[in-house]
Order: sequence, then structure tokens, then C-alpha cells
Amino acid sequence: MKITLPTGKTVESRSGESILSALRREKVYLVSSCGGRGTCGKCKIQITEGTASRQSLMKLDANEIANNFALACKAFPDTDIAIEIPKESRLLIGDKIAVGRADDLARLAEQLGCALSPLVRRVPLVIAPPTIDDNISDLERIKRELGRAGVDAERLHVRYDLLREMSDVLRDNDWQVTLTISTGELPELLAIHSGTEAAAHYGVAVDIGTTTVVVYLIDMLSGKLVDVGSTYNSQMRYGDDVINRIVHATEHGMIEQLQQAVVGDINNLLDPVLERHNLKSDDIDSMVIAGNTTMTQLFYCLNPEYIREEPYIPAANAYPEIHAGQLGIDIHPNAPIFTAPCVASYVGGDISAGVLASGMARREGFSLFMDIGTNGEIALGNREMLVTAACSAGPCFEGSGMKCGMRATEGAIEGIEFDPRSFNPTLKVVGGGEPLGICGSGMIDAIGDMYLKGIIDQKGKLQPVSRRVREGDDGMEILLSGGRREVVLTESDIENIIRAKAAIHAGYSVLLNEIGFTIDMLDNIYIAGGFGNYLNIEKAILLGMLPDVDRSKFVFLGNTSITGAAICLLSGAMRAEVKEIAAKMTYVELSVSASFMDEYMSAMFLPHTDMNRYPTVLAKMGV
Amino acid sequence: MKITLPTGKTVESRSGESILSALRREKVYLVSSCGGRGTCGKCKIQITEGTASRQSLMKLDANEIANNFALACKAFPDTDIAIEIPKESRLLIGDKIAVGRADDLARLAEQLGCALSPLVRRVPLVIAPPTIDDNISDLERIKRELGRAGVDAERLHVRYDLLREMSDVLRDNDWQVTLTISTGELPELLAIHSGTEAAAHYGVAVDIGTTTVVVYLIDMLSGKLVDVGSTYNSQMRYGDDVINRIVHATEHGMIEQLQQAVVGDINNLLDPVLERHNLKSDDIDSMVIAGNTTMTQLFYCLNPEYIREEPYIPAANAYPEIHAGQLGIDIHPNAPIFTAPCVASYVGGDISAGVLASGMARREGFSLFMDIGTNGEIALGNREMLVTAACSAGPCFEGSGMKCGMRATEGAIEGIEFDPRSFNPTLKVVGGGEPLGICGSGMIDAIGDMYLKGIIDQKGKLQPVSRRVREGDDGMEILLSGGRREVVLTESDIENIIRAKAAIHAGYSVLLNEIGFTIDMLDNIYIAGGFGNYLNIEKAILLGMLPDVDRSKFVFLGNTSITGAAICLLSGAMRAEVKEIAAKMTYVELSVSASFMDEYMSAMFLPHTDMNRYPTVLAKMGV
Repeated sequence: MKITLPTGKTVESRSGESILSALRREKVYLVSSCGGRGTCGKCKIQITEGTASRQSLMKLDANEIANNFALACKAFPDTDIAIEIPKESRLLIGDKIAVGRADDLARLAEQLGCALSPLVRRVPLVIAPPTIDDNISDLERIKRELGRAGVDAERLHVRYDLLREMSDVLRDNDWQVTLTISTGELPELLAIHSGTEAAAHYGVAVDIGTTTVVVYLIDMLSGKLVDVGSTYNSQMRYGDDVINRIVHATEHGMIEQLQQAVVGDINNLLDPVLERHNLKSDDIDSMVIAGNTTMTQLFYCLNPEYIREEPYIPAANAYPEIHAGQLGIDIHPNAPIFTAPCVASYVGGDISAGVLASGMARREGFSLFMDIGTNGEIALGNREMLVTAACSAGPCFEGSGMKCGMRATEGAIEGIEFDPRSFNPTLKVVGGGEPLGICGSGMIDAIGDMYLKGIIDQKGKLQPVSRRVREGDDGMEILLSGGRREVVLTESDIENIIRAKAAIHAGYSVLLNEIGFTIDMLDNIYIAGGFGNYLNIEKAILLGMLPDVDRSKFVFLGNTSITGAAICLLSGAMRAEVKEIAAKMTYVELSVSASFMDEYMSAMFLPHTDMNRYPTVLAKMGV
Repeated sequence: MKITLPTGKTVESRSGESILSALRREKVYLVSSCGGRGTCGKCKIQITEGTASRQSLMKLDANEIANNFALACKAFPDTDIAIEIPKESRLLIGDKIAVGRADDLARLAEQLGCALSPLVRRVPLVIAPPTIDDNISDLERIKRELGRAGVDAERLHVRYDLLREMSDVLRDNDWQVTLTISTGELPELLAIHSGTEAAAHYGVAVDIGTTTVVVYLIDMLSGKLVDVGSTYNSQMRYGDDVINRIVHATEHGMIEQLQQAVVGDINNLLDPVLERHNLKSDDIDSMVIAGNTTMTQLFYCLNPEYIREEPYIPAANAYPEIHAGQLGIDIHPNAPIFTAPCVASYVGGDISAGVLASGMARREGFSLFMDIGTNGEIALGNREMLVTAACSAGPCFEGSGMKCGMRATEGAIEGIEFDPRSFNPTLKVVGGGEPLGICGSGMIDAIGDMYLKGIIDQKGKLQPVSRRVREGDDGMEILLSGGRREVVLTESDIENIIRAKAAIHAGYSVLLNEIGFTIDMLDNIYIAGGFGNYLNIEKAILLGMLPDVDRSKFVFLGNTSITGAAICLLSGAMRAEVKEIAAKMTYVELSVSASFMDEYMSAMFLPHTDMNRYPTVLAKMGV
């Protein structure tokens, strides 16, 4: 059967093949968080001509069922069909994003002074062929030439796979080859390429988030970011947070499946990126990953059981060099992987990478770093000392567990303001189209503004100020948008957010106490994580998530895990620095801290029980 | 069916299983050079009760056929049977040999001052379990404890396979483990063992000869040789010399088969050795191999094509560390293999190891080293300079290509003297039993003595002095023994030996010329190779193979390839020294040397065209 795409292009579907698979074969990628099991509902399409069997109607509402929507993973064409692909179903990979971030990355690399020194170097060699008078072995001949090129050839370790092919490759290429050599502890020969022309030479930085996986493709000759890909972490099918993943890995014996899920995500992201730039998988010959401790251990298939059990011990903080081929990553199999080092079981390589990217570990003044993603981690310190903690904020800011939650992608409400009289909201939607849900920054905006306008009280309870506030299926809710798809915030959503902001507030308060500081002594407050630039500071202060200090101290950094990974990919100095940062950071275990519980309970009000901590809010509320 | 062995023990044979396979399953090993293809005729047995189908009668003479002899690899029991196993069919592995050589090895190790420093070390660790206050990662905890034990833990590389099991192994063993760590360029964690008791810790040294494979099992805690095994190199099925092996590897595309053949030999030798000492294969965690350049490359499956083609280039001389598991050797898969370094395409690691074992590279005085095995290699020099050459003597001294040739094992004529009047020979037979063939030292003895007694002339032609000199199937021959099995030397055998001794004589003459020396300026002449202690110097001088110098200068060293490999297994200083020896040795390519051809032609007489080089022979002949 033929499937006609919105572009007019057609794809032939094979017998028994789902629409999702047929599209994927033709490099048309849909979001598929559950890996095609029909459970995540992310791969919705609309069948506009012809008919298809829908083997599952789960995750489709009555309206969608009536309008021939289907889950692409559970739909099989009966006739030739034509389809529409809603924006939210398309896997987000785009040059537009890449260009913006490329400038940011270049600026940061320059600012940190990170000279280009990748995990591997390419050394072109024009070798004099052997003669009866110059009859040293092939390997000695290579080493002699490498020595002339300034490589420490004496200590060079040659992998057995390359030793086996070396003699033939040299002769097949008339003794003109380019070697890839690792720049790690021991120089190692990783690949022999034909000829001495500067061949494609790329690296990939990966942020393995609990919720999302982001890849940066970087040209290692120029140091330029050339493309970006991101997707949901398909481990999501085993639960939204790290604890559920650990339970699946250990009690259900599914560690290999969890590893394969994230490796599959990375490979699926690389596939279209390679295609777009006309690259072969072997052209990528180095990789850096940054992730929280659980994500890192699952990526390497290391039993995460002891992360969860007291005394909460990770398998490793600093990782040895591992090669891509050992994990099934579809890049050059000998590509070395550098792992952003972890600090403790609940402060991982994403935070080390983030602190690196913030530059705070280089400055004399003290900074607070907050990474608000699926968990909430904070770090505090300067170039001499660093303390860090994890405050279990939960994944609500990424949309998880929220009735209409979604990530900050097209269709997400990212900003909201209520009319003080009619209580009708003005919405800011990512991409400007119809609202499909609400993302973290939207929630903060909404709750902060609702508190300001009296739609909710200090405990977050909805007040009957408008017909928008109504009884819903899950208790009280407020209608934000009533289009094709209703977007609401429920009272339980609001409670979720208050719990999360209370954990964050308590976290940095405890860390400040640890070092005997008060909030006003900080020079900078770095905010990293999914919502990045979209966060409205004033509303976040109203909420009591951010402290009520001079606004100029707040700096939004976006996804610092991927940025940190990318600069580690670029530079050996950065890799050394991130190791130093992780080794230096003192981890504070909040779960055994008495003062944390006190701080948390005090922060369960809007903005805080102690209103004196929030002078500008007091002023705004006219108290 | 039941097979009753000479010992009375019975073995059950399975349907369709050859007697050879049934015996092997029960750890009764027969010589099987062709790997059970029915072509080498080495696995002969006699069926003394019952009947068996003999699928091939090749390699059996009429007498043997009549007396129910069979090739064990091509015979299948029809009924319960009883068998006899002739001595020459048993695979030679024995404690008696081991004990003798163990003393020699210990003496040599002491003499060379080689302190025990294996390729791997075992480090027992009693680790404090983690607590909430001491919550560093498992890997950091191991490294911290290793640092306290004096290991360079900072640089320690941890293999991915061990990283994966580490956390569980630590906890399963209550934090008491013993680590195996390589002592190479970069310390690497190779194994984690339960508990801290000194566990079995063995190494294996292997001499990969073109004709034979020898293994030494060494206890790495005491440095003692505990067992020895040897067998024919089953690559023999692809030809007797290295050139035939190269042709098979390249033109017939059988390089993998050649590798598997020798790896199989090593595994087959280790099997009964492990069994005898109650060891598991994982108890052997280091390995050293020494072999000529072709054998080394075939062991590692490296294309040997360029060894054979001018300008004769090996893939590598000094080899990187390779692990046993990469080759399928049945010892600990992470056991590092050290390779005795090669010098050139026709002077291999067996010679580097031999020169090391001789100690000549440490002395001020000059020595000549001759290794007469399947090829003939020589080295000349002292602690300052070394030259070396290969003189293509061919495998005749190992019995190959000789009508009744065999190795110096039980039944081989190793000494012979003819009565000056009756021309009847008095034979010295290895093991004292019935002669089954003649080995290298026997041939040299026979030809030297035949020349002295006038049975052959200066060109090696047989004279009709007795009825023992007769016309045989292959031309003129002399009957040496007329028992159950006739042993003869043919004129073509004699010519073979003369060609070989001429090549050797020419080889060392050219090397002496190279450095401007004469033979009498040497302090020692070391003789290594298969015939070892059995060679009669006087007869070898009569033959013109050895020079006519002060007899006290000759030193027999036996198999110096295995001895050198064994001391490299024991000691890091020896591994450094053998690398230095190989790097220092200047290779002289005789095939392009004009003076070699002249020397060779002059040496085609007994003992030599220039009789003045042989004053004692002149005296003996009464000239």
C-alpha cells in the first residue's frame, strides 16, 4: 500500500508493517516515546484519505477517533492512504535550533578559552614504502612516521582489530593513510583511514536526561555545532523518574532493556542527522555523555540497585574510557566515550557539566546553580569550594504527572497572564499556534499570576472567581484554553508545583546554611533546565521558587548538561576541569538533614510562610 | 560400545564417534598432527579384541593391516573392543620431563638474576564498606584501597566487562576481593576474584615452532615450572615449512584455519595439564609466546603475504599487548599475552628469546648462536652489537622430508656408530626400545661416521661397502635397522642433510665476514634447537656443520625459544631485555648476499672444499 505524506511524497508500506515503521524506513520520524507499543500516544497521525486498521484507540479522545486520528505504531493501511502529521507528533530535530545554539556554544567556548583538543586526533601520514635496505616492520614504519609527526609513538597502543588490517590497508592505499589516535592516558590507535585528505571528522555530545535525550553533532575540524536532535528518553515507558527506572532495572531484571532503550534513542537521533549532512556513522569518532547518576549507570548497564539503597552508592563517579562499539552506539565502533563525572548517587554528570558550563567554579564570587529538570539539583560555591545537593523536585516542570503538561515545544503554553477583572487569560504559546498543553514556565507563570490576582490562595486552592474555575474529572480545575483541545490546570497540578518549588527552596536554603551564607551574599543565580529562557522571574519569585533578590543576578543558561558535554567534547582542558569540579564538590545528603524538612514545610505556602523573605511580593500584594 | 584401554580402564564410545575422539573425551591423548583427517598416520592403535570399521587403511603397511592396526581417527568400533596404544602414538606430556627442566629453568633464572615480576599482579584488598558519611563510589573505593596497597590507582584503567560486574562482586564477597592488575604500560584491572586467600595464579609460556608447539605451565607465586606439554604443530597439515603455510594462508585464503590450528594445539596441550594439576582455565592469567615471524603472525591471524614477497616485511616486530580471549586461548580471557619480539621476516621472536636465554647479549666476549630447527637461524655478537641471519636450512633435522625421519622422541635413533670392518651399526635409541626412525642428531652422527668410515664419499654418495648399502624404492639407501620397521637413510636424505649443513656453515661464515671476525675469535658457540643435548660434536664437525674449534666452546642449550619465553613470563626485566635485544640486532638478508652463494657452494662437500678449515678432520682421515 502507498502512504501519501503531507508533502506529497509517497512511502510504500510493507505487509504487516505499521505506519510508524514504514515512515521510519523512509526517514520520516515521529515521536515514539514508548518505542511503538501503543502506550505513550505520542505518534498520533490523521488519516485523510483511504482507510487503515487501528489496532488500538487508546490515547485517542472521542473527537480524534471520529476524525480518523490513529496511533501510527498501531495503525496498518487497508488501502492506499494519505495522512496528516500533527506538529506535536513530529520528532523535533531542526536546523533552526542548531543555528541559534551554535552561536551560543561558540561564544561560551571562546569565553572559557577552550582550545580545540578532541578525544581523538587525526594524523595524516605519507609513508616511504619499504625496501630491502629499509625493511622494518609495518608497525615500526607507522610508528617512525608518527614520531616524525610529533606523536608519542613509543607508547602507542595498537588495537588488535587494527593490527590485523594494518598491512593490507597500508598497501591498498599506497602508504598514504590518516590515523585516528586517542588522546587519553595512553595513546591508542583507533582507526586507519584511506588517503591523507582531511576526511569528515565529527563528534557527538549527548545529554541523557531522565525525560529527554539531546544530541549535538559537532564538526571536530572547526569545532562548530552543525546539528541538534532531541527526543523523549524512551525509558519513559518504565516510569517517569529515576526510582521507577531503578526498580525496573533491578527488581524486574530489565537493565539490558533500559540500556537498549536509551542507546536506541541516541541511534534514532543520529540517523536523520547523519542523513542530513551526508555522513557515515564512522565519521563520528568521539563522544561525550552527561547524565544524572542513574542515567549514566543505565547507559553503561551498571546495576543501579545501590543508588537507591542507603547509603546510596554509585558504581563509579569518574568513568574509564569506554568505546562506542561496546555499547552498540552507531558511530565509529572504536570511538572513545568520555563521561561527565558524577558526584554522588543523586548529583550526576549533568550537574558537573552544568557547573562547568556556568563558569562559576572559576570565579571568586559565590554563585548558586539550579538545574530544574526531572529532578532538581543545586550547587553553590566559587573557585575554591563547591557544595551540592539533590532536592527531589520531581518531574512536574517537564509536564509529567500534570493533567495537560507537556514540554516547551510547539503548542505549549509558556506564558500566561490573567485579566485582573474578567480573569480571562492571555496566553503565550510556543510556535504561536493553538495551545496543546502547558509547559513548566507556563505553570509557574500561571500559578504566580493566579496568586497575585487572587485566583488561588496562599495554599494554592482555587477560588470561585470565574466560571473558568470549575469542578473537573479530577477535582477543581481552571480552564486555560478551550480550543480543539481543552487545556486546564487542576488543584492537584498546583499542589504538585508547590511541592516542587518548596523542595528547591529548601534545598538552596540548607546549602546556604551549610556554608554560613545568606541569599543576598550571592553574585549570581544560574538557572538551568528545560524551561530555560522562557521562565518569568517575577512569577517564579511570586511562587517562592526563586529568591526575592536583585533581578540582575539571575542568569538563564538553558540545558547546561548538553552545553557542558559539548565543551568537553571540544577540549581536553574542559575535560580536566569537569573532573576537578566533580572531585571537588561536597555532596550534602538532604534526606538525612533535619533542617531540610523544616525548610520544606515552611516553603509549602505562596511564596513562603516567612513573608519577610519576599519583600517585593509583600509590596506587590499591597500588604 | 566400550573401548578397553591397555590400563584396563574403559571408555564408552558414542555412535558415529571415532576412537580418537572417544579417547580424547576421556583425556587419553594421541598424536594427531593432521587433526583427525587420516592423513598423517600418527594416531595408530592396535585392536586386540573385538572389531572396528577402518574407514582408511592409508599410512598402514601390509603387516599392520594384517595385525589389526588402525588409525584411531578413522576407526569406529563395531563391537566392544580392547586396544593397544603404541608408544609413538601417545602424545608426549610428562612430569618426568617437567622435573628435569624445572631445575634448568630455576638455575637459568637465578643466573640471569630475573626477579619474579609477572605480566599481572594479584592484589588482595579488605575494603571498608560504604556508609552515609563515607559514600564515595565503588570504583573510587577500590582505587583508594589500591593506592594504600601501593598501586598507581590514579592511572588504573578498568575494563568495561569488570566495571559491569564490580558493584555486585564487591557486595557478594563482603568487600574482600583480590584484583588482578596488568603491569604493562598502563595498569589495567583484568579480573576481580572472591576473597583474599592466595588463589591459584599460573602463567603459560609457549614456543610456537613450525614443527612443534611446546607449553610450560609456571606457578607465578613461586616462579616454578610445574608441567610441560608438547605436540606437533597441526598447521603441519598445510605443509612442513613456513613458505607452504604462507601460501595456504594467502593464496588459499586459509589464514583463519591456520590460526585456529595452532590455537587448538595450545588449548589441547593445556587441557590435560590443567586436569593434572586440578586447575581451572581462569587460573592461568598471563602468557608469553615465542615463535618465528611467520608463526607469530599466523598465531595472531595477521596476513603473512608480505613476509614472502620482496622486500620481505613483517606486520610487526614488537607486538602490542593482546588478550587471550581475543584469540580463543582457553585461559583467563583477559590474560595479557606478551610476544617475544621479532627482528625481521625470517628471524623471529624464537631467536630473540634464544639470544636472551643464552646470556650472550650481556657478555663482553663474542658468541655465535645457532638455532637449528625447522629453519636455521644464527646470531653473532656480544653486549654491544648483534647481527643475525636466516639460512633456510629446511626442516630435515626435525625428520621432515626424510624417508625414516622423526623427532627425538621414543624410538628415534639418536646416535649411531658403524663397525669399521663389518659396517654394522651400533644404535642408540631414545627410550632404549626398538628403533622406529631416525632423528636429527642420529642423521648427523650417521653421516659423519659414514664419511669417516668410507661408507660415503665427500659428496655424500653411498659406496657399495656392505649389503646394507642397497638399491631401494627411492634410489640408493643404507639399512640402519631391520626390525619390525626398517629404518634406512637414502642418498637423497644424505644430500638433504648436506644442503642444510652447507646453508648453516655459509650463514655463520657470512656473518663473521660482516663484522670482520674469524671463527677462532669466538668465546662460545651456542647450539639451540630440537636435538639439543644429543648432538655428537665430533660427528657434526666431520659433517662440516659445526666449525673445527676448541670443543669446550660448544654449549648445548636445547629449546631456547621456550626457555626464553619462560623467563619473559617470570620477569619484567627479561621482557625489557628481550625487546632491547630484538631492537639492537642487525638483520643480514642472505638471499641477496653474493658471498653467501659462494660460501654455500664451497660447503657442499664433506666437511668442506677448503679442508684447511677442518684440521682435526684432516688428522682423523689420516691425510
